[in-house]
Amino acid sequence: PQPITEQKEIKDPLPSWNEGSNKTAIIDFVNVVTDDQNPEYVKPLDRIAVFDNDGTLWSEQPAYFQLFFAIDRIKAMASDHPEWNEQQPFKAVLEGDMKALVASGERGLIELVMTSHAGMTTDEFEQIVTDWIATAKHPRFDKPYNQLVYQPMLELLDYLRANEFKTFIVSGGGIEFMRPWAEAVYGIPKDQIVGSSIKTKFEIKEGVPQITRLPELDFIDDKEGKPVGIWKFIGRRPIFCGGNSDGDLQMMQYTASGKYKSMMLYVHHTDSVREWAYDRQSHIGQFDKGLDEAKANGWNLVNMKDDWNKVYPFD
Amino acid sequence: PQPITEQKEIKDPLPSWNEGSNKTAIIDFVNVVTDDQNPEYVKPLDRIAVFDNDGTLWSEQPAYFQLFFAIDRIKAMASDHPEWNEQQPFKAVLEGDMKALVASGERGLIELVMTSHAGMTTDEFEQIVTDWIATAKHPRFDKPYNQLVYQPMLELLDYLRANEFKTFIVSGGGIEFMRPWAEAVYGIPKDQIVGSSIKTKFEIKEGVPQITRLPELDFIDDKEGKPVGIWKFIGRRPIFCGGNSDGDLQMMQYTASGKYKSMMLYVHHTDSVREWAYDRQSHIGQFDKGLDEAKANGWNLVNMKDDWNKVYPFD
Ligand SMILES: [Ca+2]
Ligand SMILES: [Ca+2]
Repeated sequence: PQPITEQKEIKDPLPSWNEGSNKTAIIDFVNVVTDDQNPEYVKPLDRIAVFDNDGTLWSEQPAYFQLFFAIDRIKAMASDHPEWNEQQPFKAVLEGDMKALVASGERGLIELVMTSHAGMTTDEFEQIVTDWIATAKHPRFDKPYNQLVYQPMLELLDYLRANEFKTFIVSGGGIEFMRPWAEAVYGIPKDQIVGSSIKTKFEIKEGVPQITRLPELDFIDDKEGKPVGIWKFIGRRPIFCGGNSDGDLQMMQYTASGKYKSMMLYVHHTDSVREWAYDRQSHIGQFDKGLDEAKANGWNLVNMKDDWNKVYPFD
Repeated sequence: PQPITEQKEIKDPLPSWNEGSNKTAIIDFVNVVTDDQNPEYVKPLDRIAVFDNDGTLWSEQPAYFQLFFAIDRIKAMASDHPEWNEQQPFKAVLEGDMKALVASGERGLIELVMTSHAGMTTDEFEQIVTDWIATAKHPRFDKPYNQLVYQPMLELLDYLRANEFKTFIVSGGGIEFMRPWAEAVYGIPKDQIVGSSIKTKFEIKEGVPQITRLPELDFIDDKEGKPVGIWKFIGRRPIFCGGNSDGDLQMMQYTASGKYKSMMLYVHHTDSVREWAYDRQSHIGQFDKGLDEAKANGWNLVNMKDDWNKVYPFD
């Protein structure tokens, strides 16, 4: 007769994370706050985890993906706007002149986003984003942008949810640019996605109730805006915060100062081969003050090159 | 030997609802949208149910309960503000002169709310609301305000959630006035409570990260604001909408015009004995246009007196 063997299935919840202090810290943190015998136990309702998106859950180089979207929109709309051939920042977009586009400054970029993101109903905009994400390709990887998500972070999101965390995105990106695709990609429902927004208006057009997008800023969900957005949309201080840049510093500080045990995790872009390497000097995702604070406070600093054995799901 | 009898437990999910067309309509609606063999099936992520609060989930007479809160706050703060003895609308509050208070108009009421709801951190305000709801008593029933919730609506919320609906509050009331107690009372998490808000600011005060409440309106979640709030916070068109007044009409219209089967349910206050009876002429919870539209469109009109065999949990 065969001997009876005990089978223990110990499944690694974070297979794309190399063994090391960051992986250990994540698992230890989750074990502590979910153990109701531990003095640092946190009940499920308070297990709020917030994640930045650009550079934290998906890539953001060579430019924010939403900027590529805005550029494609402007090009698609150009035939109705012959005046754009002579008018910045549209001229720069149509001529593919990134230098002139950058020179148009924040004001130019906001004008670009307003023009390309407003003036239609929310249903129409949702369809436009859905179509774009299904067809547009990233210039370096020649794949849809929403394939450039980080496999280790997808595993982290799953792991937290399996331990009764409620996961949220808190991004400087546009809330309505993320919602149409992020739900399926990250497993985060639309109502748990917080971002920057423009104003909208309810109106009945030819008998049909509609919400129309207006070319007016409503809320900038960045820097000091992130804790404000967290409070407004979530109503609780998080106990887990993931980010990658100075724009996340305030929500890290906010998370760190709660009454419960908390974890602050910064993704440091150190992998110039599989992804990109940038930090203090970068115009996109600048990570300077945040890097200093992470080191000073002993927050977890993920070294993408060493901590991740896989970057993208397709790697 | 005893005969073996088959025991069928058919539990009524809505025991405080009398048999009738409204109860039948609710159960039929839920059965249809959750039956994946039915052409009108709706997948769980799209089962969004929104509910007004004042007059829909809890009472709102003889005045919005949040106004009682504001009045109690003004009284508690008065010793630091001797000037209020001569200054409206504070004078009216301190003298208990409801007539003068009403005469101060919307401007006066907003000033009252600003003064009583701003100027502290969000953590402090949460504690103030928590203390008030635990101690203040309703003038007619002499019970804490959050016991004046409608038992039939609690059952409806539970029933929808048991059928994988995600339930939200979408109220004209203050978001931060509701969140501290509504989660426990309604079983609706804080991040699923949408309401009117004042602006806040993130700041580090003596080394401690705080969010401070500012005396400036941010968002009015009423009338046309309700669909706007739904889109902003939830990002989906609901398929179930509960309300009680003209302030809910736009979110009813918005819900009714989605691509899925939907249910619009208006609570009509018809019970002058157990609760209150009011509609077209009422200054609080005016139900006039909404009543016409409900009748014209065949929306469900709950007759509180006849449809509910119980109003409050303590009845
Ligand atoms: Ca970022
Ligand atoms: Ca109401």
